[in-house]
Amino acid sequence: MREFKRLTPYRDAFNMMINDIEELQNVEEMLLDGALGRVLAEDIHAPIDVPPCDRSAVDGYAVRAEDTFQAREYSPIKLEVIDEITAGMESKEEVTNGKAVKLMTGNKMPKGANAVIMQEMVKREGNTIYVLRPVAPGQNVSFKGEDVKKDEVVLKKGQILRPQDLAILKALGFKSVKVKKKPLVGIIVTGDELIEELNEEELISGKILESNSAMLKGLIREYFGEPHFYGVIPDDEAKIKEAIERAKRECDLVLITGGSAFGEKDYAHKFVKLLFHGTTIKPGRPVGYGERVFVMSGYPSAVFAQFHLFVKYALAKLVGANYKPVTIKAKLKNKVASSLGRHEFVKVYYENGEVLPIKKKGSGIISALVESNAYLIIPEDSEGHREGEEVEVVFY
Amino acid sequence: MREFKRLTPYRDAFNMMINDIEELQNVEEMLLDGALGRVLAEDIHAPIDVPPCDRSAVDGYAVRAEDTFQAREYSPIKLEVIDEITAGMESKEEVTNGKAVKLMTGNKMPKGANAVIMQEMVKREGNTIYVLRPVAPGQNVSFKGEDVKKDEVVLKKGQILRPQDLAILKALGFKSVKVKKKPLVGIIVTGDELIEELNEEELISGKILESNSAMLKGLIREYFGEPHFYGVIPDDEAKIKEAIERAKRECDLVLITGGSAFGEKDYAHKFVKLLFHGTTIKPGRPVGYGERVFVMSGYPSAVFAQFHLFVKYALAKLVGANYKPVTIKAKLKNKVASSLGRHEFVKVYYENGEVLPIKKKGSGIISALVESNAYLIIPEDSEGHREGEEVEVVFY
Repeated sequence: MREFKRLTPYRDAFNMMINDIEELQNVEEMLLDGALGRVLAEDIHAPIDVPPCDRSAVDGYAVRAEDTFQAREYSPIKLEVIDEITAGMESKEEVTNGKAVKLMTGNKMPKGANAVIMQEMVKREGNTIYVLRPVAPGQNVSFKGEDVKKDEVVLKKGQILRPQDLAILKALGFKSVKVKKKPLVGIIVTGDELIEELNEEELISGKILESNSAMLKGLIREYFGEPHFYGVIPDDEAKIKEAIERAKRECDLVLITGGSAFGEKDYAHKFVKLLFHGTTIKPGRPVGYGERVFVMSGYPSAVFAQFHLFVKYALAKLVGANYKPVTIKAKLKNKVASSLGRHEFVKVYYENGEVLPIKKKGSGIISALVESNAYLIIPEDSEGHREGEEVEVVFY
Repeated sequence: MREFKRLTPYRDAFNMMINDIEELQNVEEMLLDGALGRVLAEDIHAPIDVPPCDRSAVDGYAVRAEDTFQAREYSPIKLEVIDEITAGMESKEEVTNGKAVKLMTGNKMPKGANAVIMQEMVKREGNTIYVLRPVAPGQNVSFKGEDVKKDEVVLKKGQILRPQDLAILKALGFKSVKVKKKPLVGIIVTGDELIEELNEEELISGKILESNSAMLKGLIREYFGEPHFYGVIPDDEAKIKEAIERAKRECDLVLITGGSAFGEKDYAHKFVKLLFHGTTIKPGRPVGYGERVFVMSGYPSAVFAQFHLFVKYALAKLVGANYKPVTIKAKLKNKVASSLGRHEFVKVYYENGEVLPIKKKGSGIISALVESNAYLIIPEDSEGHREGEEVEVVFY
């Protein structure tokens, strides 16, 4: 009767794992065009002020605000237009009392002017404008540095680059950016029962179509990594040893599925010095970690939970990503029960502020993964939640 | 005084746009490995039951449950082990009363057996096992079709493929899958004031570093499309006309930034038959749409709102994606005001169930986009929300 004599509490196991993972220092320079979703390897300091000078925020007339204070729709103020410039041009004229310069959005404010009247707010006749409403000093002006100040840190090392981050980089004149190289993550799938081709006869006689590799490749890509699949390795001690040693040499992180339990044919844990093996999580209890290797379950549903409870954080730390899953509050549509002592990963379907637990018996069940879009955790000291209770969920 | 005489209410503008967009029928066959994030072009019917037969869900002994009903730790029941099989094998023996077959997780249930005893629950001596606890009929058995039934639709046309969806496809024997081709989205940026290289002198004299293309490329990639950038086109009527005509010929959707207002140099709307031009949204009021072309603002912040309020839905419809942004409830940390008649897109920073509005003056402000991670909408008939109110937000 071999079994997990002691299950390591999830939080302890997590801490051992995360403390063992060290951030990789491999950096590559990427053009902005290829940097979406990548992790910034350096702080970005603004090389310029944005805007770089005081600018008009509208199409209109640069004036001295005090000239307009008495302007009313039925007693307009007359000003003389002394210059007109178009987009990207600069006026050499100085705006003095009684004068105005016509300009466009983004134009540098002419000397002397301190406000801009929108063109819709004036009537124009030849070189005269009739101002219908007053403007305040500073009105319709974008001031130097009001968006970004020179030397300010606009993006921090670890930022996962989004479209708007690429925009600010481009607005500051960057064409490329230093990002972390994607960690190479080896996937080793073990099991004599696994087949790769649909064959109904073999399936009925007890074989199983291997699916963990497809899921893990997708998860690794979603969480900062580049997968490398070493194929299905039969339950042969020497072959498993060889595959693990090769993957450890070639990859930054290794995931082995199907060899984590203590069945007679589960060899994986023999070749890796594990910091823990067997935790309180459910599903996925037999998970183990050591030497940048995770030994994981064979069941897809258990592997999925092990990935979300451990592996994604390991990947985030390897690339130094500023990653924290967003937790949101939602109302539970059905009660959900859990055993004391289990850190339970419950698949749920979130919609409109409510979550429905997707409970199906058996950790072999893939359809529950497909029907859910988020998870909630019931920690070791809780027996679950009642219908209608508020819970915290995380989207996949 | 030209202006938008009538602003089309957001909801009306949205409906005109979405009703005009037609789903593209271009399909490509992708290996599962390249299908992450792609949109399924067909319903997927299960070609097999999963499991394909009744199977053991654990490593242990297949028995007739009734033989074990009297088993107790201090008065175990004796059974004879008549066969042993390993992963992927099938036993040819029949389990009758008093007999057991040793098997592993996933093995087909032998004839006659109706339950499996976990190996930890027995003591073994030679070919005899001592059963310490009873098992119920069906216990530790995965029944044929309990995960997926043959012919059942497991994934629907329009599904955006996630790692777990790829896993179920692989578990059903699929090696590739039909997905929608990515729509090609042309980006035309207009404006004489725009430069592509950092040049402080030019910036101070009124030029602006172009950044919309970087943002739009990223957004298009995040929302099902493939961007194609036609570069910065000067404010020249003939050149803009030519670029629009070329992009309309070559692309499935065209986004033009910087030519949507009614300034003298805003030509874009002259060459596209717009269904609407000028809406109640803020920022981004001058947005227009017609003939698979969006005319958008020059300001990145306005373009960003226009993308999230209109363009992402157009892209989802083009590929027939089952896409609906997830709305979540959160508590407002500061009050947020809006004018009646405006459908306001408010950038917020979400953390731990609370949102902080990121309000900065000026629609030219990019830093507010970078500091926020979600948005909320204040519709036309609301003047905003008080501090502490519950609001609905959408993550970028």
